[in-house]
Amino acid sequence: MPRPRKHVFVCNQSRPPGHPRGSCSKNGGTELLQAFWQELQKRNLYEVIAITYSGCIGPCDQGPNVLVYPEGTLYSKVSPGDIGEIFDSHLLGDQPVERLLAPKDIWN
Amino acid sequence: MPRPRKHVFVCNQSRPPGHPRGSCSKNGGTELLQAFWQELQKRNLYEVIAITYSGCIGPCDQGPNVLVYPEGTLYSKVSPGDIGEIFDSHLLGDQPVERLLAPKDIWN
Repeated sequence: MPRPRKHVFVCNQSRPPGHPRGSCSKNGGTELLQAFWQELQKRNLYEVIAITYSGCIGPCDQGPNVLVYPEGTLYSKVSPGDIGEIFDSHLLGDQPVERLLAPKDIWN
Repeated sequence: MPRPRKHVFVCNQSRPPGHPRGSCSKNGGTELLQAFWQELQKRNLYEVIAITYSGCIGPCDQGPNVLVYPEGTLYSKVSPGDIGEIFDSHLLGDQPVERLLAPKDIWN
């Protein structure tokens, strides 16, 4: 993997059923990861964007969470339907998708 | 989790026994992650540094691999004995540990 211009971490933390914090995996994180990988493949952007799963990156009840580096942008409650906009606006256009940003009291 | 000044991703990718690429998990990535978390706890730096496990981030045969953002520094063949220096020099002192950098033909 070459050094990517954007590195997207998709939380796939799982926890036991009934755990009070829930988890991004339970909230759709695994399907979201697969959809990110499909979009990367469709656009053939392997040389410039990396998509990696990760453990917990923050607000579990707001998941699934997605963190983009190097700028350190945290998105919450991301669904597969948001991925096209994240690619177009942020990963390729450098404009974060405001409506998906995690609350500022959690991540600022 | 507040937004960290440094975010350390420790690869914990696993693969089936005998897989030709091997994996960071097989190369000690899981023990390394635990050691990073212990160091974070010992130094009580939860407000400024985040340690997160991740899926594959690159050169599996050079693992275990560790990736530090926002600067995007990739370390290879990291062992628990290197962690103190990574904290002192890089995570707190902003000077990457040169001897642990991944080869430039892999990550530049």
